[in-house]
Amino acid sequence: MTKLRFQRLLLPVAAASLLAVATAATPQAPTAGVAAAASRLGVDAQVIDDLVTANRILAHENIVDGYGHVSIRHPTRPNHFLIARSVAPEFVTADDIIEYDLDSNAVAPGEAREFIERFIHGEIYKARPDVGSIVHSHSPAVIPFSVSTVALRPVFHMAPFLAAGVPVWDAALVNDPEAKGILVRNRALGASLAATLGKKPVALMRGHGSVVVSRELKNTVKNAIFLETNARMQSAAIALGGPIKYLSMEEAMATLSGRGDPDRAWDYWKRRALAKH
Amino acid sequence: MTKLRFQRLLLPVAAASLLAVATAATPQAPTAGVAAAASRLGVDAQVIDDLVTANRILAHENIVDGYGHVSIRHPTRPNHFLIARSVAPEFVTADDIIEYDLDSNAVAPGEAREFIERFIHGEIYKARPDVGSIVHSHSPAVIPFSVSTVALRPVFHMAPFLAAGVPVWDAALVNDPEAKGILVRNRALGASLAATLGKKPVALMRGHGSVVVSRELKNTVKNAIFLETNARMQSAAIALGGPIKYLSMEEAMATLSGRGDPDRAWDYWKRRALAKH
Amino acid sequence: MTKLRFQRLLLPVAAASLLAVATAATPQAPTAGVAAAASRLGVDAQVIDDLVTANRILAHENIVDGYGHVSIRHPTRPNHFLIARSVAPEFVTADDIIEYDLDSNAVAPGEAREFIERFIHGEIYKARPDVGSIVHSHSPAVIPFSVSTVALRPVFHMAPFLAAGVPVWDAALVNDPEAKGILVRNRALGASLAATLGKKPVALMRGHGSVVVSRELKNTVKNAIFLETNARMQSAAIALGGPIKYLSMEEAMATLSGRGDPDRAWDYWKRRALAKH
Amino acid sequence: MTKLRFQRLLLPVAAASLLAVATAATPQAPTAGVAAAASRLGVDAQVIDDLVTANRILAHENIVDGYGHVSIRHPTRPNHFLIARSVAPEFVTADDIIEYDLDSNAVAPGEAREFIERFIHGEIYKARPDVGSIVHSHSPAVIPFSVSTVALRPVFHMAPFLAAGVPVWDAALVNDPEAKGILVRNRALGASLAATLGKKPVALMRGHGSVVVSRELKNTVKNAIFLETNARMQSAAIALGGPIKYLSMEEAMATLSGRGDPDRAWDYWKRRALAKH
Repeated sequence: MTKLRFQRLLLPVAAASLLAVATAATPQAPTAGVAAAASRLGVDAQVIDDLVTANRILAHENIVDGYGHVSIRHPTRPNHFLIARSVAPEFVTADDIIEYDLDSNAVAPGEAREFIERFIHGEIYKARPDVGSIVHSHSPAVIPFSVSTVALRPVFHMAPFLAAGVPVWDAALVNDPEAKGILVRNRALGASLAATLGKKPVALMRGHGSVVVSRELKNTVKNAIFLETNARMQSAAIALGGPIKYLSMEEAMATLSGRGDPDRAWDYWKRRALAKH
Repeated sequence: MTKLRFQRLLLPVAAASLLAVATAATPQAPTAGVAAAASRLGVDAQVIDDLVTANRILAHENIVDGYGHVSIRHPTRPNHFLIARSVAPEFVTADDIIEYDLDSNAVAPGEAREFIERFIHGEIYKARPDVGSIVHSHSPAVIPFSVSTVALRPVFHMAPFLAAGVPVWDAALVNDPEAKGILVRNRALGASLAATLGKKPVALMRGHGSVVVSRELKNTVKNAIFLETNARMQSAAIALGGPIKYLSMEEAMATLSGRGDPDRAWDYWKRRALAKH
Repeated sequence: MTKLRFQRLLLPVAAASLLAVATAATPQAPTAGVAAAASRLGVDAQVIDDLVTANRILAHENIVDGYGHVSIRHPTRPNHFLIARSVAPEFVTADDIIEYDLDSNAVAPGEAREFIERFIHGEIYKARPDVGSIVHSHSPAVIPFSVSTVALRPVFHMAPFLAAGVPVWDAALVNDPEAKGILVRNRALGASLAATLGKKPVALMRGHGSVVVSRELKNTVKNAIFLETNARMQSAAIALGGPIKYLSMEEAMATLSGRGDPDRAWDYWKRRALAKH
Repeated sequence: MTKLRFQRLLLPVAAASLLAVATAATPQAPTAGVAAAASRLGVDAQVIDDLVTANRILAHENIVDGYGHVSIRHPTRPNHFLIARSVAPEFVTADDIIEYDLDSNAVAPGEAREFIERFIHGEIYKARPDVGSIVHSHSPAVIPFSVSTVALRPVFHMAPFLAAGVPVWDAALVNDPEAKGILVRNRALGASLAATLGKKPVALMRGHGSVVVSRELKNTVKNAIFLETNARMQSAAIALGGPIKYLSMEEAMATLSGRGDPDRAWDYWKRRALAKH
């Protein structure tokens, strides 16, 4: 890239603007800067690579757009978590990853561009020691369920994690000065969301989106994708007009405990997301 | 292009392959001709670049297709506005930008290819001194609400601007010889639309589309996109069959007044739109 | 292309298979072979170029897939028409264009790969001297209306041509030995479809698709696209549950007679379709 | 790649730009390794090429995602079948094809990455000597019908194979220790699914997906695609609210027996799928 940047200085304006387009079209591969970030944050390079890839996958599969974020608990400092600065997930690179404590304060000072809703992550990690990763998204088929009295329930075997019930958090019902603004703008709102989530893997956020949590990043990303898929399928099943046979709790438990091929979907989404760039 | 092809011979392989991507892009990069247009129209280059980018973003996000337009009030001549000549937004360049007075007459004579419905813009700018930019689109999820008695209302926190109510303008009800043609073909129809819009940020146009207005271009583009998103989500919520809890006016006000990150979405959409070319 | 084909002989296997992909990815530009076809068929090159482009546009806008076809009446031999041999529209080139008489017999002998349903075209041209071009498609949002008692009606001002009513042709009701096969496999079935179409610009074909006809190719393509758009919008409007205010006949007439910019949409779709290749 | 880059220097400009497109393609072209696989498995190269292409087509047409699979009965060893190892269909290559006996045991020992649900294939081939190929998918518009009492029925003439009725297999109703896990994890569950399928060309699998079977691979792929299309169209027709006139059995029989152009759709999908890479 250094060689390329140097060449840019030599190019006339027309070529330079074309190159600008080309550069925009081909953001840095996820591995760029990974080693530096891993060293800075005290984790293995694979951890950073996976977190950057998770951002790309969620963008490519239309779970996040300019908004939404994914975090992981720090592997060796469990009272810290890692998340990007305020950047659209499709364009997150290793350089963008920041370390936070569980009060959602950046460990390194001076960071200006933070996600407003980082408190979602800090407060859930605080309340749920079993959780190692969190996705917050506005994925579109889920939001109708967040404003409806009709419950989101599993119709698809890839979404067994919905069988325990999907709580809906309504910011408007929280007794907090900032509650009317929908967003999770402070620790108290984050703690309220975490309380509504309880021990569940998913909570909807009324008029806003959802949080998906699980122990492991790849699983959380997968669940965030199939949450959206299930919402679309359930909406279509309801529109058919007949009664629906949802997954039972027994089926969900059996599905969750069955041996599977956890990497196949991740590898597939990763190839697709990276091929795009 | 000859100059560019010559440069290719001088570039190392890596740059050449990037250029190959750029060359695959047919339309001019948005920056081409910006300086000349800025000089011709008496504005900063950034103003032109943003207006061209707004066209590209709206096209790439499927808010406009071959039809639809976006304008800004002239920054230093507030009784003028800037809009493209009659070109599909995806292919608008700086050269296409024209200056109009508020009677929707082109300032420079001899322009043959004008948007028929430029009167939408002139009449709204005339009636609404607070408005600095306007998007008119036929975005598809919005139009069903324009022909229905079911009101478009906010279900998504990215569309708080809908909370004040969304008036529907029906050309057929206007007492004008051209009213039956649906389109805003003259100043009187534009003034009628502006009257229906009143002080609101959005009006639907029956069987036709919508107008979205706000002080600032990036905000107007964002609202035009989330207007469509909200319409899709509300339609899905209605299809679930249960009662819906819409955003309250209090929530909408709090959301609108909350500090945000106004450039994140714009930067995201811009990168995507330019990467396409 | 000759030069390129020659180069292929020199390439090793790996490069050859990559080239095979590239060739598949970049079918001949629509202008390739246009002059030869124009000469063979006795028309201007522009006529061929437009017909090939119409195929590409309809494919790119998802009106046709592997099936569907578009024809024009021969400009100087009005009892003949031009249509491709049996090829997916996305890949039609000038070489594929065949001349037929109005009994749907190919003028040049020996053509093996013909559209089964060429009789749609021959019989409509026979019955409708005012028609200069025909699109037959299976566009997906239209077909539900073809099997329903709910009538397709105009909700969008780009589909005023629907205001006169949209007849539905049901092959099963035709007294013909091949009628049960849904397809228009012979002249009698084509004549029956033409009789149902009557003087209208659109007819649906039950469980099958639609025909769209008009004097001029670009207009027919445009109407085929907005037929699908309107069907989607009307379906969404119905799903909202309230009464719908459709375009009146008076509005449709005014819209159809209004001056417009007929080439803007065509130019837009053409650029998009060609940019894809 | 070094060899390829060298070739680029020798190619004229036109070929170079084609190569640039080809280089942008990451995965191996479908023909790579075909000869070796054909030799290893004792079949013609065309058999392997078609099976790999079927995987690519199903992925490109959004019938399969990271999950789903397609198999063929071995052409000369009818008590064996060929299917990929556990790989997302979009990325299957000839090297991934494995030979199984009808108890779903791999013929060559030591294969670690097998599809869990290979028993779907073995048991259906065992029960249905007329079946030469099988697609199992989670295509999204079909699944709502699998959990609803509303039956999937043909509204589109490209899905006449639905006219004989579409049985729904419910794993939860099978008396097997693994039945609650939804997936076809063993021979008994596969045999139960095959029994539900009976002599039909399609069975739905509750909360899971579908199987589509027919004598010939290209036909099975086509039916898997139009199964999804028909489900989408039927859902839309139901949402219109009026009665629906489905294809009759007589029409379906006539459609199925009509001469057609079986390769047109396959060729179209193949070109599209390969152009993507």
